[in-house]
Amino acid sequence: MKRDIDVDSAQKLILENVCQLPAERCHIMQAFGRILAESVLAERDLPPESKSAVDGFALGDESAQMNCRFHLTGFVRAGEYPGTAVHSGEAMGVVTGGCLPSGTRSVIMHEKTAVEANSITVLEEVKPYQNIKQAGEDYHQGEVLLPPGTFLHSGHIALLAAFGHSDILVYRRPKVAILSLGKNIMKCSQKLEPGQIWDSNSPMLAALLHQAGCELTSIDLESRKDSQELPVYLDAAACSADSVILTGGTYAGSQSEARQLLDSVQARMIYWGTDSQPGSHNGFALIGSVPVFALSGNPAACAVGFTLFVLPAVRHMQGINPDPKKVRARCTNSFNKGANSRRYIRGRARCSDQGWTVTVLPGQKPSMIRSLISCNALIEVAPGSPPLEAGASVNIILLEEAD
Amino acid sequence: MKRDIDVDSAQKLILENVCQLPAERCHIMQAFGRILAESVLAERDLPPESKSAVDGFALGDESAQMNCRFHLTGFVRAGEYPGTAVHSGEAMGVVTGGCLPSGTRSVIMHEKTAVEANSITVLEEVKPYQNIKQAGEDYHQGEVLLPPGTFLHSGHIALLAAFGHSDILVYRRPKVAILSLGKNIMKCSQKLEPGQIWDSNSPMLAALLHQAGCELTSIDLESRKDSQELPVYLDAAACSADSVILTGGTYAGSQSEARQLLDSVQARMIYWGTDSQPGSHNGFALIGSVPVFALSGNPAACAVGFTLFVLPAVRHMQGINPDPKKVRARCTNSFNKGANSRRYIRGRARCSDQGWTVTVLPGQKPSMIRSLISCNALIEVAPGSPPLEAGASVNIILLEEAD
Repeated sequence: MKRDIDVDSAQKLILENVCQLPAERCHIMQAFGRILAESVLAERDLPPESKSAVDGFALGDESAQMNCRFHLTGFVRAGEYPGTAVHSGEAMGVVTGGCLPSGTRSVIMHEKTAVEANSITVLEEVKPYQNIKQAGEDYHQGEVLLPPGTFLHSGHIALLAAFGHSDILVYRRPKVAILSLGKNIMKCSQKLEPGQIWDSNSPMLAALLHQAGCELTSIDLESRKDSQELPVYLDAAACSADSVILTGGTYAGSQSEARQLLDSVQARMIYWGTDSQPGSHNGFALIGSVPVFALSGNPAACAVGFTLFVLPAVRHMQGINPDPKKVRARCTNSFNKGANSRRYIRGRARCSDQGWTVTVLPGQKPSMIRSLISCNALIEVAPGSPPLEAGASVNIILLEEAD
Repeated sequence: MKRDIDVDSAQKLILENVCQLPAERCHIMQAFGRILAESVLAERDLPPESKSAVDGFALGDESAQMNCRFHLTGFVRAGEYPGTAVHSGEAMGVVTGGCLPSGTRSVIMHEKTAVEANSITVLEEVKPYQNIKQAGEDYHQGEVLLPPGTFLHSGHIALLAAFGHSDILVYRRPKVAILSLGKNIMKCSQKLEPGQIWDSNSPMLAALLHQAGCELTSIDLESRKDSQELPVYLDAAACSADSVILTGGTYAGSQSEARQLLDSVQARMIYWGTDSQPGSHNGFALIGSVPVFALSGNPAACAVGFTLFVLPAVRHMQGINPDPKKVRARCTNSFNKGANSRRYIRGRARCSDQGWTVTVLPGQKPSMIRSLISCNALIEVAPGSPPLEAGASVNIILLEEAD
């Protein structure tokens, strides 16, 4: 077991011990937010055949002078497929988005014609292939439509559907169990005795996991407050989940509740402690091959620990690049503490006229929740750095939509 | 019924005809992404009582010189509530995050003491209230924690849980039905005959609705391809859903499939046609009080129509500000078409050193899907504008996370 390692080494050890999950099929109507597990090729052109871009007439000639007359041989209505071709000197009525008869060389808008019983006269010069949506103008047969690892949003889903994919191969969502330690930590539906506090980390982690595309396995906090039941619970969680998060009980090193619990189930400790603030008291272990994260019980430290250690793991499990989005930003205010180890300051990032800016949020103690309310970025401060001055250029990790 | 109105007027008419949905209770573990329907006050201080910030000793004195000795009267272990007070000249062992005995005036770290059987000696000067997390230092009793309309993310959920809220009052998710018109539009699980195409709009709209916090009511495309069954289907959809989206069949004005269908169920048309591109052929109607949107069948026009007309409505239903996030951006490339009516160009927005930039994406025909793949912004071009030049300053609507 390694001790008090730096964050980069911890992340490396985690990724070495986490596997991509198997793929599964997902219906296209439920595919939003899933991660594509295969490369998808265009099996044909899109659109597959040429179509009219306007309501008007398909002409059998590439071009025609003004006042030229065409014999009207029929109409192709919306949704119809033309059985007959159009030849030189002939016209056939067509609708916007509708199929064109074979032999079509150009299409003229209805408004640019004079229509009689069996003929039309064009009132504007006709140019080759005008008003035709060409087959393959959007995508060509054989193109790679989407690579594996694509986070499927509405545009991707439209594209897959347009090529007839109704069941999509996606990575399975990681199933994660949460176990909040500490005898004085009560479910927020319970009444408190003096000295007890409500568990805010389990609901917070549930939200973070949901946002990261994970599913929560059921937890039952009341039924296992007896610490003798905790190893049974943890073993069961490791059997049914792809990963387990412990929160709380990480202080006091090997005497901590989290360490003792992990030892009691013969978990293999990979590391304990990282050289970072907040949340230096954290660890990573394996129960069999199931990764278990022990995060600080302090809310802000727990949230930072999730971002640094759990998020890369569950992203990797789903076939996505585990690295967060990092940018340089200008700090708009100061922070009066230096950093002994690498410090993660909660901030609010915005795009300004000079690029990214970030504002240090109030309430930076690890035990406080306040900074998490507006937090959309972590300011990463190197060990040995002096207090942060307004105007300083800093590295930030972007957590979500930043304005 | 109004005809060919501008987008702002259309949005105003829509919001006048859409109601906020009733609130419902949601468990805190499922609250991510829900919209808070009430103002939540701090019913007590957070933390409710003072706590130790370190493992060490609670002292009955505000200050002490180095080498000063304290009588050790006991220990408060993790999760314990101290029954006895600490007095001047006395010390009591405490743990990080643990409760402090009444009378505590300061806390000294374990490492800064020499511990004997019944006493400790401080090895560093003690300052008033050092290492104490004060009651209320995060939130004070009576503070407004969160206002109604808050989109609940992990930080908000931690805060609500920390105050013991296990069931949260949130707005009900809008239930929306989708009906894709057009006889040649087939479900993407079906085999195609010549001239038929797969329905990409229903899956795309399902994704957009999911992203906007809506629930989809079930649709069955196969069972109602006979146009005589469409009015029955639409009536049923309007009975079970909070809103209905029709897509396709909007061309040809009053002769269009969408208009005829709406007329057949005695829908009250509010407007038909907007002075905008793409997707000028669109409309808004009421079946009873249920809002029905008729969007273009062209994929890009359908997506733009969703953003302009459906999104404000379903946001308003959920108690959120319906207005999208608009910023000024510098266009990095050109677009060779001017705008007769207000034009919405699909773009990719990024935060650069000079602020927001936006790049016009390839594939801007309304019938194409390509521009939607990377689209995270709509460039809003005023009627009568010339073609867009690289470097121009433009208004953009931000659709999602922009980099």
